[in-house]
Amino acid sequence: MTHTAHSFNVLFSEAGEFVESRLQGIAEALPAPAPTRLRDSIMYSLTAGGKRLRPILCLKAAQVFGMGWERSLPLALGFEMIHTASLIHDDLPAMDNDVLRRGKPTNHVLFGESLAILAGDALLAWAFEYPLTQLAGADVPADRICEAMRIMANACGPFGICGGQVLDTDPESMEDGADFPFKVAAQKTAVLISACVESGAALGGADKKEACAFRAYGMHLGAAFQMVDDILDVTSSAEELGKTPGKDATQNKKTFVSLFGLEETRSLAKIESEKAIEAISGIKGDTGFFEALSGYLVERTR
Amino acid sequence: MTHTAHSFNVLFSEAGEFVESRLQGIAEALPAPAPTRLRDSIMYSLTAGGKRLRPILCLKAAQVFGMGWERSLPLALGFEMIHTASLIHDDLPAMDNDVLRRGKPTNHVLFGESLAILAGDALLAWAFEYPLTQLAGADVPADRICEAMRIMANACGPFGICGGQVLDTDPESMEDGADFPFKVAAQKTAVLISACVESGAALGGADKKEACAFRAYGMHLGAAFQMVDDILDVTSSAEELGKTPGKDATQNKKTFVSLFGLEETRSLAKIESEKAIEAISGIKGDTGFFEALSGYLVERTR
Repeated sequence: MTHTAHSFNVLFSEAGEFVESRLQGIAEALPAPAPTRLRDSIMYSLTAGGKRLRPILCLKAAQVFGMGWERSLPLALGFEMIHTASLIHDDLPAMDNDVLRRGKPTNHVLFGESLAILAGDALLAWAFEYPLTQLAGADVPADRICEAMRIMANACGPFGICGGQVLDTDPESMEDGADFPFKVAAQKTAVLISACVESGAALGGADKKEACAFRAYGMHLGAAFQMVDDILDVTSSAEELGKTPGKDATQNKKTFVSLFGLEETRSLAKIESEKAIEAISGIKGDTGFFEALSGYLVERTR
Repeated sequence: MTHTAHSFNVLFSEAGEFVESRLQGIAEALPAPAPTRLRDSIMYSLTAGGKRLRPILCLKAAQVFGMGWERSLPLALGFEMIHTASLIHDDLPAMDNDVLRRGKPTNHVLFGESLAILAGDALLAWAFEYPLTQLAGADVPADRICEAMRIMANACGPFGICGGQVLDTDPESMEDGADFPFKVAAQKTAVLISACVESGAALGGADKKEACAFRAYGMHLGAAFQMVDDILDVTSSAEELGKTPGKDATQNKKTFVSLFGLEETRSLAKIESEKAIEAISGIKGDTGFFEALSGYLVERTR
């Protein structure tokens, strides 16, 4: 590791504040033809806080290959839009039926089910439109933009978070067996986290091999992240978590914790975290942030 | 007009059959990691029939600029995916709550609400992934792909069909005034139809001015299309229509017919149809299909 815990926190919060400030101003990019209530619903969830992990990952991955934050920002914000869209839809009554998210009422509680569905749809489309519009005039090679968008699209489609959410919520799609939580974690969480770093790297100028190394990093990091999420769902209070804890058990979900127990899940997360670091060990350039992050995510408490 | 009614029908069905045959085979492009139930739900709605108007428009627009159907097909199918996604979500209980579509049970009736929401989301993402993946290896200039995808994304985002559906279903977003149905028609229907021809033209090699002419064509055609839809909702049986008629009146929607009456709406549709043809009058190349189509859509009975 090239960063101490202290300098890591500084690095993390600097990128986080950059993302946060730009997200607050992004409502300006939503022109008047969008109905006011849809704008309100979209912006409510998009600016509801959170770690901003996905856009930070994207900015930092592009930076490894020499691209500044300002330039990769549209792609990074696109990933936060996708993440937000998936949260809005996951919380719907027909899905996880959750009323609390990041310490606030969920979107459908405030705006109604119909608008929450449409806000999610609109965010999913805006996630593509915003970077495609912003990057078109930014002198970024078009083939890199296409590749970054392809990776993004793959992560939210039938093989990505949508597929993962089906495995997680559809009783008929659930499977027995110890590898099922791994399958869910891969599709539901890791594919999107992985896409953030892979497409950030691709946009920044990584070659195929380097982009693949970042994809592998993201898949392992995402698995570790989901394991810690499962642990926190059992061990945290609503106040610490900002969302309703204990939902997995109530809904009889097959999680890492329900299958392997707390201690074993902690070990598994540590192993995934180490595999993540190993995956990018051959990358030339400063990958210190990604090494530090991998350790941090395993230790996080919310 | 350069085509008779007979040759127009032949041209229309030829492209329609091309699209239909490729859609039937597209399940192969959905790899195994996608859960079986999600695949079934997606393919059920994608292969449920329909006029395939949007992909046909896209193929034909690219063709005007010399690009063959085989090459523009991935983009064309992307538009059918978006259209299908919007129908699945529009039919949900929280939205139009419709149980019949194209003469068959709607997606959520067969697969449940949760899976229907996710199938729509997955189709929306696949609409970007499929063309970005297929076109990457097809020797189409990357800047044209980016522009085509940007147009597609714009049409399904907050300013496009999502915004239109909010205006159409959210009581608090409805407005009084004679221009409201025009606003809804523009966002809900015309923006997507317009995006099919504009992005097909852009992918095929149209310059900015030519692409804009096709966009204007699509906006007028789309308005005419929605007017005829409003008329058919009042005058047709469920059998003719393949979906539940009379829903607009039941739901107190502000349609062209409710505001202007049947005869006046027919006149308005004719005017829009003529404006569409005028918009592309300066295009070099064979635009006969688009002229014939504009007349046909006004006369259609389903």
